[in-house]
Amino acid sequence: MMESATVLGAGSWGTALAAMLAARGLRVQFYGRDEALMAEMAVTRRNGRYLTDVEIPAEVEPVSSLQALRPAPLVVFVTPSKSMAALAAEMGSLGLVDESTVLLSCSKGVELGTGRCMTEILHGVFPQVTVAALSGPNHAEEIARRMPSAAVVGCLDEGMAIRLQQTFSLPWFRCYTSTDVLGVEWAGAMKNPYAIAAGIAKGLGLGDNAIAALVTRALAEMVRLGVASGGRTETFYGLSGVGDLVATCYSEHSRNHRVGLMLGQGRSLSDIMGGMRMVAEGVPNTESLWLCARGRGVRTPLLDEVHAVLYEQKSPREALRELFSRDPRPEVD
Amino acid sequence: MMESATVLGAGSWGTALAAMLAARGLRVQFYGRDEALMAEMAVTRRNGRYLTDVEIPAEVEPVSSLQALRPAPLVVFVTPSKSMAALAAEMGSLGLVDESTVLLSCSKGVELGTGRCMTEILHGVFPQVTVAALSGPNHAEEIARRMPSAAVVGCLDEGMAIRLQQTFSLPWFRCYTSTDVLGVEWAGAMKNPYAIAAGIAKGLGLGDNAIAALVTRALAEMVRLGVASGGRTETFYGLSGVGDLVATCYSEHSRNHRVGLMLGQGRSLSDIMGGMRMVAEGVPNTESLWLCARGRGVRTPLLDEVHAVLYEQKSPREALRELFSRDPRPEVD
Repeated sequence: MMESATVLGAGSWGTALAAMLAARGLRVQFYGRDEALMAEMAVTRRNGRYLTDVEIPAEVEPVSSLQALRPAPLVVFVTPSKSMAALAAEMGSLGLVDESTVLLSCSKGVELGTGRCMTEILHGVFPQVTVAALSGPNHAEEIARRMPSAAVVGCLDEGMAIRLQQTFSLPWFRCYTSTDVLGVEWAGAMKNPYAIAAGIAKGLGLGDNAIAALVTRALAEMVRLGVASGGRTETFYGLSGVGDLVATCYSEHSRNHRVGLMLGQGRSLSDIMGGMRMVAEGVPNTESLWLCARGRGVRTPLLDEVHAVLYEQKSPREALRELFSRDPRPEVD
Repeated sequence: MMESATVLGAGSWGTALAAMLAARGLRVQFYGRDEALMAEMAVTRRNGRYLTDVEIPAEVEPVSSLQALRPAPLVVFVTPSKSMAALAAEMGSLGLVDESTVLLSCSKGVELGTGRCMTEILHGVFPQVTVAALSGPNHAEEIARRMPSAAVVGCLDEGMAIRLQQTFSLPWFRCYTSTDVLGVEWAGAMKNPYAIAAGIAKGLGLGDNAIAALVTRALAEMVRLGVASGGRTETFYGLSGVGDLVATCYSEHSRNHRVGLMLGQGRSLSDIMGGMRMVAEGVPNTESLWLCARGRGVRTPLLDEVHAVLYEQKSPREALRELFSRDPRPEVD
């Protein structure tokens, strides 16, 4: 068990994680860059922007300046994937990371252009430091309300995976371990474009049969691209893979699903994105994953169609029509 | 392409299949044992009991007596799993099956006590005849309304699998092939108890995270028991496995899901079953699958809890509590 942690990122998932660690008995420094928000949180014990009805426990100390942080044995990154590298470097230059620190990524995505996962970015900045990733079907809203949930923590060092499992285990949160950190991360990174696809299908009026077929094909693509990127097949059939995929494809909580739904109903991407306060990570994810698939020579027909809808002005109806009219073939090839 | 077929079983799936084959240009003899229902259907071109708004095409000939059937090159079994053996024997004694016939099972389940799949039962009656199975996320209501759907047809004889694929392919129905007929059947047979589990979870007020975790663990159990029973792992990650599992666990169409939902809300099984016109196959399925798992020494904690709720008066809340409180462990073991 660890005694304290720093959580970087004050969105809904960061807020839920900070509350979880506090419930587990850790002292938590909770960093968000919005000075007014964090100052208000210290007084009201509420995050005024996300999960506004969740009480922030007394063990959580809101902080709005990296300079104000003290070193902690566990640093949890819950920041958008595109700011991961810069934030890690700044933590390093402030002396907040040393060889005894554990860096845990709870962000999902791969870096645009390089195709690196979050732990690969962290490892690039701190080659001597243990990195890990936590992923699974984890809508923050439900975890904050203490509804039963489960996740998997991946770390090359199995002993550390078990320590992290103990750190996050709560009566309402079940944590499994894995040594396939890349698989855990790739599985988590890939679900969002497919949630957009499921939303598009629903928006076009397709039914449960079509969406189930689409989820099945999505899982096959996740395995192909994830294994080509260093993950192990079996991980994609676990909580971070199929679990997170179905939670995202079938949930009304998912922003990505909602983006797809509106696209399917005929709204334009720019119109949709203009009306959303929270980022739908699936939109940039689609671009970075599609580039990876092309670079690694992996066949991803479903991802390609999502990419064409988001970035090449293809009509959603035409994209789905093509998916369902490819030549019939054996199911496994 | 085949020119004619006999469809045995006039429930909703049988009705949808008969209409599909007719749409593909086959002459179809459509057998149901209810004389009045079939006679009425011949006049009204509607099934008065299931899918009542679907027009029965002119190529479909309703029949209510096995004696009235003529031999056909394709016989499709869509009858309840428990009457499969007797019906097959009767078809044989009437000279309606010979070595050139293809027997296709579209029923899902395993035989109580013996643990045999439907094609194994058919093979037992007709050792020289080609048997096959079609399975996937196929709510009959959607297929009858020509909403896009997909399935997999399994047959040891790959050439016959391709012929059946061609026979069932329609613009709104995509058919894949597999030579793993046992895998296709086991995958289809196992989803129902897990749909009951998902319904129970929902009825108890659990959220998307818990249900996604439950679906993930269900898939792992399906692989373990299905592979121990002769199926191939990869089949369970396809349409007949994960595809049908998610369609059933997340759909309001599923009777099994509804049974679970009512159990979770506190109603008794006898009360629920008394109020249902259609059979929820998941209830007897749970018993036969649970016996198989015990006989084959396969660990199935989730199936065991569903069995305990249905057959041992265990409270649904207690069953789910135990599932979520087992010792934490590695995800893959």
